[in-house]
Amino acid sequence: MKTSKLQLQKVRQTLGKALHETPVLQSQALNDLTGAQLFFKCENFQKTGSFKARGAFFSVQSLSAEAQKKGVATHSSGNHGQALAWAARQMGVRAYIVMPEDAPEVKAVAVKAYGGEVHFCAPNLAAREEGLKQVQAKTGATFIPPYDYENTILGQSTCAQELLEQVFDLQAVFTPVGGGGLAAGTCLAARYCSKGIAVYGAEPAGADDAYRSLKSGLHVAEHQPSTLADGLRTTLGHLNYAILKERLADIFLVNDQEMLDAMQLIYQRLKIVVEPSCAVPLAALIKHKEQFAGKRVGIILSGGNVDLGAFFKHLEQKKGR
Amino acid sequence: MKTSKLQLQKVRQTLGKALHETPVLQSQALNDLTGAQLFFKCENFQKTGSFKARGAFFSVQSLSAEAQKKGVATHSSGNHGQALAWAARQMGVRAYIVMPEDAPEVKAVAVKAYGGEVHFCAPNLAAREEGLKQVQAKTGATFIPPYDYENTILGQSTCAQELLEQVFDLQAVFTPVGGGGLAAGTCLAARYCSKGIAVYGAEPAGADDAYRSLKSGLHVAEHQPSTLADGLRTTLGHLNYAILKERLADIFLVNDQEMLDAMQLIYQRLKIVVEPSCAVPLAALIKHKEQFAGKRVGIILSGGNVDLGAFFKHLEQKKGR
Repeated sequence: MKTSKLQLQKVRQTLGKALHETPVLQSQALNDLTGAQLFFKCENFQKTGSFKARGAFFSVQSLSAEAQKKGVATHSSGNHGQALAWAARQMGVRAYIVMPEDAPEVKAVAVKAYGGEVHFCAPNLAAREEGLKQVQAKTGATFIPPYDYENTILGQSTCAQELLEQVFDLQAVFTPVGGGGLAAGTCLAARYCSKGIAVYGAEPAGADDAYRSLKSGLHVAEHQPSTLADGLRTTLGHLNYAILKERLADIFLVNDQEMLDAMQLIYQRLKIVVEPSCAVPLAALIKHKEQFAGKRVGIILSGGNVDLGAFFKHLEQKKGR
Repeated sequence: MKTSKLQLQKVRQTLGKALHETPVLQSQALNDLTGAQLFFKCENFQKTGSFKARGAFFSVQSLSAEAQKKGVATHSSGNHGQALAWAARQMGVRAYIVMPEDAPEVKAVAVKAYGGEVHFCAPNLAAREEGLKQVQAKTGATFIPPYDYENTILGQSTCAQELLEQVFDLQAVFTPVGGGGLAAGTCLAARYCSKGIAVYGAEPAGADDAYRSLKSGLHVAEHQPSTLADGLRTTLGHLNYAILKERLADIFLVNDQEMLDAMQLIYQRLKIVVEPSCAVPLAALIKHKEQFAGKRVGIILSGGNVDLGAFFKHLEQKKGR
């Protein structure tokens, strides 16, 4: 992927007012805990509740008018499906989302609420890809991949671009690593829109394909994830691997308990709702805090789409007493 | 209580940078749901996690140097205790917080973390008042009441003062009503710092003393609350009653289920952590939405100190599987 500062700036201009410039939050308690000055970039407040709206919007907007007429399609059980449905609707484009039939009902409801057309398939990758092909054959819709795609990565770069403008003199930025769309976009923004801020990736130990790829120099293209961080179970993409290999300062692993502890800190101290994946970078920073003591560190909180059912059920039971 | 615009503005200047100017959030989904344009003033992001920091800070700051030397005291099992401990520490003042011995441990921990000195007492009002008297007799500390106190009310008025600056052309503001500190402060701000915006109170049906007081014209000074909204179980204060009687446009009741439904909407749509009491105004607005259709309405979200233990326990159990 060839990129330039001008190109990244243009991407950002293209997104315009369709997306939120999300706020940056701080917490004295978390600064005290880590010894660093932390700046949390809150993509949980982004349209559709995650940064995915950025890449999806830029990808749809970059299509020709003819392609837009035929619609866009993807397979997703998570945030990308919602983001694509939302983005397409902003431009009057049809969106076809292939979802495994065992996906939580709330996910399909969300896609439909954004005007997307849901196509169910058997819950395995082969069926998802086959389902997508069928939809494309029938409609001529363009496939918009969730991360291994240039325009998706460029769209995601706008998150760190904003952060670099919102907070001066950052010395490091932490990003979660799943498929690598946000991580690669963050690396590009740091490379072209800052004086070389170091970007650190954080990954669940139960889905450590990016860690193993980057440490070994051999792209691990398949893995069997086992982590609560549902947003980070995907496999690192090819374009993404190439960018991270060149630009990522380091990558850290955390286990699910470390992630949950960090997630609880975010709820208690920042008073915001984030999904488990979101907490992986803070958990990694806490684990390696000596390395970042005294530094100004940005932390990208990727999204806030989490099922709070258990919490509200508990409250309702208390009410019933 | 005699007040003027100049006085309210001075209070706000006095608070200066010690407190956050909390953000105002919007949600398209909640606008669509209610037919109004809603502006949520997020006091869950305030220092100590609630608006109480405002009144506590102004009250401590207004004391003479001599009184400050002797410290401040209150009895509280909730947000006011934390807020007073925090505020006192900002000015190098000692804070003595009398708490019932059955209060959740986390509350005492929070007060101590802010540098407050905790004194336990038996869990009833008489013991709390007796405990407070003993602390005062020993230390000479000044009692800072949580709501029935002029400086507390003036401090709380700064929340709505900010909101009125942050959002132009508001037509109504919703506030929860417990002891009436925030509600009275909001009424004063609306009276002196706007062209007469209507202020609406919202109260849990299980703690409807303010509703009954205002509808009957007789101050109900005792009641037996039964609601999950722990922040709104207190009885409406005397100063507060006098202000609300004169200035509140109307007051609405909601039951706990309506409150929980609204709370869930806030978590899902605004992606923020709020305590149950916080959701009472939105629940009231939803219940009476025809009356506010097409209007620009401010909603004060009072705080975010809620026990999320059940939610994280549920996640940890999933992790263990």
